[in-house]
Amino acid sequence: MRVGLLTGGGDVPGLNAAIRAVVKRGEGEYGHQIVGFRNGWRGVVDGDVLPLSRQHIRNVLPVGGTLLGTARFHPHASDGGIDAVLATLEAERLEALICIGGDGTLHAASKIAEAGVKIVAIPKTIDNDVWGTDQSIGFDTAVTVATEAVDRIHTTAESHNRVMIVEVMGRHAGWIAATAGIAGGAEIVLAPEAPFDIEKIEKFLKHRHRAHASFSIVVVAEGAVPAEGTAMHYETQVGKFGEIVAGAIGERLKAEIEKRTGFDTRVTVLGHVQRGGTPTPTDRILGSRFGVAAIDAVTQGRSSVMTALRGDRVELVPLAEVAGKVKHVPAELLQVASALA
Amino acid sequence: MRVGLLTGGGDVPGLNAAIRAVVKRGEGEYGHQIVGFRNGWRGVVDGDVLPLSRQHIRNVLPVGGTLLGTARFHPHASDGGIDAVLATLEAERLEALICIGGDGTLHAASKIAEAGVKIVAIPKTIDNDVWGTDQSIGFDTAVTVATEAVDRIHTTAESHNRVMIVEVMGRHAGWIAATAGIAGGAEIVLAPEAPFDIEKIEKFLKHRHRAHASFSIVVVAEGAVPAEGTAMHYETQVGKFGEIVAGAIGERLKAEIEKRTGFDTRVTVLGHVQRGGTPTPTDRILGSRFGVAAIDAVTQGRSSVMTALRGDRVELVPLAEVAGKVKHVPAELLQVASALA
Amino acid sequence: MRVGLLTGGGDVPGLNAAIRAVVKRGEGEYGHQIVGFRNGWRGVVDGDVLPLSRQHIRNVLPVGGTLLGTARFHPHASDGGIDAVLATLEAERLEALICIGGDGTLHAASKIAEAGVKIVAIPKTIDNDVWGTDQSIGFDTAVTVATEAVDRIHTTAESHNRVMIVEVMGRHAGWIAATAGIAGGAEIVLAPEAPFDIEKIEKFLKHRHRAHASFSIVVVAEGAVPAEGTAMHYETQVGKFGEIVAGAIGERLKAEIEKRTGFDTRVTVLGHVQRGGTPTPTDRILGSRFGVAAIDAVTQGRSSVMTALRGDRVELVPLAEVAGKVKHVPAELLQVASALA
Amino acid sequence: MRVGLLTGGGDVPGLNAAIRAVVKRGEGEYGHQIVGFRNGWRGVVDGDVLPLSRQHIRNVLPVGGTLLGTARFHPHASDGGIDAVLATLEAERLEALICIGGDGTLHAASKIAEAGVKIVAIPKTIDNDVWGTDQSIGFDTAVTVATEAVDRIHTTAESHNRVMIVEVMGRHAGWIAATAGIAGGAEIVLAPEAPFDIEKIEKFLKHRHRAHASFSIVVVAEGAVPAEGTAMHYETQVGKFGEIVAGAIGERLKAEIEKRTGFDTRVTVLGHVQRGGTPTPTDRILGSRFGVAAIDAVTQGRSSVMTALRGDRVELVPLAEVAGKVKHVPAELLQVASALA
Repeated sequence: MRVGLLTGGGDVPGLNAAIRAVVKRGEGEYGHQIVGFRNGWRGVVDGDVLPLSRQHIRNVLPVGGTLLGTARFHPHASDGGIDAVLATLEAERLEALICIGGDGTLHAASKIAEAGVKIVAIPKTIDNDVWGTDQSIGFDTAVTVATEAVDRIHTTAESHNRVMIVEVMGRHAGWIAATAGIAGGAEIVLAPEAPFDIEKIEKFLKHRHRAHASFSIVVVAEGAVPAEGTAMHYETQVGKFGEIVAGAIGERLKAEIEKRTGFDTRVTVLGHVQRGGTPTPTDRILGSRFGVAAIDAVTQGRSSVMTALRGDRVELVPLAEVAGKVKHVPAELLQVASALA
Repeated sequence: MRVGLLTGGGDVPGLNAAIRAVVKRGEGEYGHQIVGFRNGWRGVVDGDVLPLSRQHIRNVLPVGGTLLGTARFHPHASDGGIDAVLATLEAERLEALICIGGDGTLHAASKIAEAGVKIVAIPKTIDNDVWGTDQSIGFDTAVTVATEAVDRIHTTAESHNRVMIVEVMGRHAGWIAATAGIAGGAEIVLAPEAPFDIEKIEKFLKHRHRAHASFSIVVVAEGAVPAEGTAMHYETQVGKFGEIVAGAIGERLKAEIEKRTGFDTRVTVLGHVQRGGTPTPTDRILGSRFGVAAIDAVTQGRSSVMTALRGDRVELVPLAEVAGKVKHVPAELLQVASALA
Repeated sequence: MRVGLLTGGGDVPGLNAAIRAVVKRGEGEYGHQIVGFRNGWRGVVDGDVLPLSRQHIRNVLPVGGTLLGTARFHPHASDGGIDAVLATLEAERLEALICIGGDGTLHAASKIAEAGVKIVAIPKTIDNDVWGTDQSIGFDTAVTVATEAVDRIHTTAESHNRVMIVEVMGRHAGWIAATAGIAGGAEIVLAPEAPFDIEKIEKFLKHRHRAHASFSIVVVAEGAVPAEGTAMHYETQVGKFGEIVAGAIGERLKAEIEKRTGFDTRVTVLGHVQRGGTPTPTDRILGSRFGVAAIDAVTQGRSSVMTALRGDRVELVPLAEVAGKVKHVPAELLQVASALA
Repeated sequence: MRVGLLTGGGDVPGLNAAIRAVVKRGEGEYGHQIVGFRNGWRGVVDGDVLPLSRQHIRNVLPVGGTLLGTARFHPHASDGGIDAVLATLEAERLEALICIGGDGTLHAASKIAEAGVKIVAIPKTIDNDVWGTDQSIGFDTAVTVATEAVDRIHTTAESHNRVMIVEVMGRHAGWIAATAGIAGGAEIVLAPEAPFDIEKIEKFLKHRHRAHASFSIVVVAEGAVPAEGTAMHYETQVGKFGEIVAGAIGERLKAEIEKRTGFDTRVTVLGHVQRGGTPTPTDRILGSRFGVAAIDAVTQGRSSVMTALRGDRVELVPLAEVAGKVKHVPAELLQVASALA
């Protein structure tokens, strides 16, 4: 059996663990030939292939990024894109395709599946907002990096009596903000799920600094916005791949807080460090389990499904159930963040 | 409301996050007085109390261990133990007790609950074998430490052409062995759930070293044993609190492997480093969520329940469902470990 | 003997190790009373004291920041500042003062010493540019954080075929840029010591991306500038305490590189994470050794000296030799950075 | 020019940085051909070569161990060993040899140099006891790993009221014990340089646990011994390559302390984790600087010298000055360790 494999969208730590698992299990247990595509859907459209064997995956488990390369490119959004995909799959005589990606890649996967291709998807995104799975590859490492940053900034905040703002990723969902905020002991967590009121923040900070503390830490998701009808005006600006301008909300908040409270306020934009580097054990394990589950599913003839973590089990969920939905942070988690401020 | 709080059994990272959450939420939201007991059940029997306030929990979030101290002591196993507990609870006018611990502490909690005390339990154990919850406090940090050790040992194994054995914790269940084994890319994982055959290990190692590699890594849980009827004889020796003698299985395996293969073999016993130090974000978040859920449950009058992680939700499960059961590693996870060898 | 102690300037990891050493050794060995001042010279001028004992320094060794607080305030630059310092020292009956700080604090220390006060200084700065010592407290941790960031960004650069710019601290000297650049395997390192030529950078990048690689990493010190007479115009803008506007050079470089090469280029500004968090062993040890050496020197009646690391020894150097000089990165180190590009 | 390269003795983190620097600089700047030998002197004797080019050193900077492999084998100690070395060097037409190693490898290098071969040596050893250089490759990573372990064990010691012994490497010199002891805040540090008196330890522990603390941490070098004429009898047992039996001194100390004080005492033997894994920035930089300096020296016709760190400079020292000497921990450092107990 010949099986295609690609990684799409932004890179995250743990992709190589999944690639390694697909190849080891596919080749070792089933005797399949795994054919990698370079740079995501771009490589499928262009027929840019890398036949994978055991040599390619030696020592990649602790390495971040993706050995296949990746790109933000959507075949269904470009003229003739889907036809080009079908042509390549036929030319390479592939019986199925394993796609590792976030919402963009999963959406493309659905479109290709509708065109009759057997597809199994593996969810990855540091935003953790893929519906249908408790966790996606890359999230745990991003939270770990963000928490380390909050820990580091904590000591400076305390030493200098400052308000420190840490802007983390999270376009539609505030998973990193909520978890790194709780883990780092932030006083304020701002997530897209709960639009904020700048006057309440002002009041909270003034009260806290008067009462017992001389510093505060604010963790804000890049996609956080003020509630409608409240004092601060701000609209998220988004690039062509849905990327948010880094630092925009962080800088706006800093200006507002300084204006309203007079407290010395600084902003740190974590940016790219959240998505690179050695994956945590959790992301290596998740990548490994998803990779094994995906090649097993392909071998059993399953299609249009996504591997998912449910509790401590790995399951398959229909792609149709997943596509177009955003997994938001549960209210309980946001409440823990504010309860421990 | 006056609420008691204790940590029992071995210390793990994340306990302070749970203590902090109980105190912050209990005092800040509900106005309760949280009364800590020193050194687990020992402190309840002796009436050794530490009334907790915001000062005690400042900056404890990233600190391992437990600010309350802990001990391996079971009140129901000592004469008059339960009466002494009841006497202390009455003397301190406590309406409920929050117990953070592993199977020993949970068992004690059940006994005390049967005597009419309102109890809410929080599961912690680096072994991750508490039934009813996807994860217990301390497990994620232990896996992270163990994986780092396997990563480190990997480079030495490769540089020196050796078989390296890493013995990790796991008395009845091989959670750490399976996860650190997968994350660290171990060739062989030995867990209590799947008794091993030393002749198969011998064959595997000889084949691997002949074929393509000159080193191998074996991750073995302290509670792993040979399968009945196979060549190697070994019986786990256990101390009075169910602790296994560190290094016993590791050294035995080393002797057998060297004898059978002639390969230079070394053993590393991770020991106490697995249970100490700064908790990972996951353990801080789990501790925080469980702490908030526990004090909320107490306030709502719930009793004889344990906080549990189920998927991405925190729920309450009856203590009666949990007690006396061991949560074993699912077959799928063990299979991933061996599929990727 | 009553001895004053302060930490001035920006906070760095390792300050608490030095404070702890002064107190443990001063109180335990000599029976001195150590009197801390809050928030650097600000606290001396205001008479804001914290008498230090063993309780204050419990468990502070692995904690970043400074338990005394700090501020960027120079007594000699404010009217009556030096008189206020002398008045406080007399009121507190202090026989000597230990000042932990960077160039600003050391300069103030010289001025106060000229007014007749016995002073021993301890050098700290993440920039590592204090003259007279091989290393200052805080530098090793900053390099470690910066290298981790470069490691993380490396995998994203490679996965996405990008030029990634990492802006690190270093106003007058490029120690962090050179060392984190070498350790992280950066292709280009830009330091204040060697003004750059943007046309050479353009040429290098085009050649590299044509020849064999599709990504590059540039590590730039905030104080790096183009060489006079070369194509790019840029002047460093500095705030009132000599702080450079974060991101300025990084963003300018990004714009120039994108314009000249057309390569997708991203910038990460590390900012405050470089100066906070758990100190590395090297910074804890340096802080401990300097603290012991300083209180020993004070006890022996030494004055107007600074503790210094020379090879593997700790020595005392006259403050007069140190003040006003900048320790630049040696040419050999910059050459290693470019040799390994 | 054709230049040989080998890594000998135990593996340490940072070797790959040195190999990479020799190859990048040698090939890129000078056009040399670098010929690697597999498994140290073993490979020279056997003529087991690996011609190195840029492909071999891609992405090895953050990887521990040595891509050349290593072995504890001394050509001068085996019959005809030196003749075999000379024969290989001639067969491969090598004009010089770069040897990376500790005292054993440096000793062999001296012998080979005496036979007329041009040799430049690079010092590596986690024990840090090579004379003539402030630091050797591998030491900083070992201290970092050991300090992390002491930090982790600290929280368990405190939670359980125990004496925790951590046995670290250090045969003839106690560099790791002294530095990790200071950085981890150990109460007692035992190094080969200062034979201990078990009765003083007993007294100290009893006094400390009576006075104010209920736990203690002892960091002991594997080569530590009791002072002659004191109560405890113990002689270091050494294997054929000078290796000390792991755990021997740790277990003996535990038995003595428990017998004499009755305190619950546990021992952790760090072992192999100290020498593997990702190198710290310091070890990557040291490896890179030494590699560049060594190939520069070879190119300039220098011989019988070793690269050395002196303050913040890299210099060359004659091998003859280095051989046969042990660099002991300075008294000041041991004093800091005991002053801060």
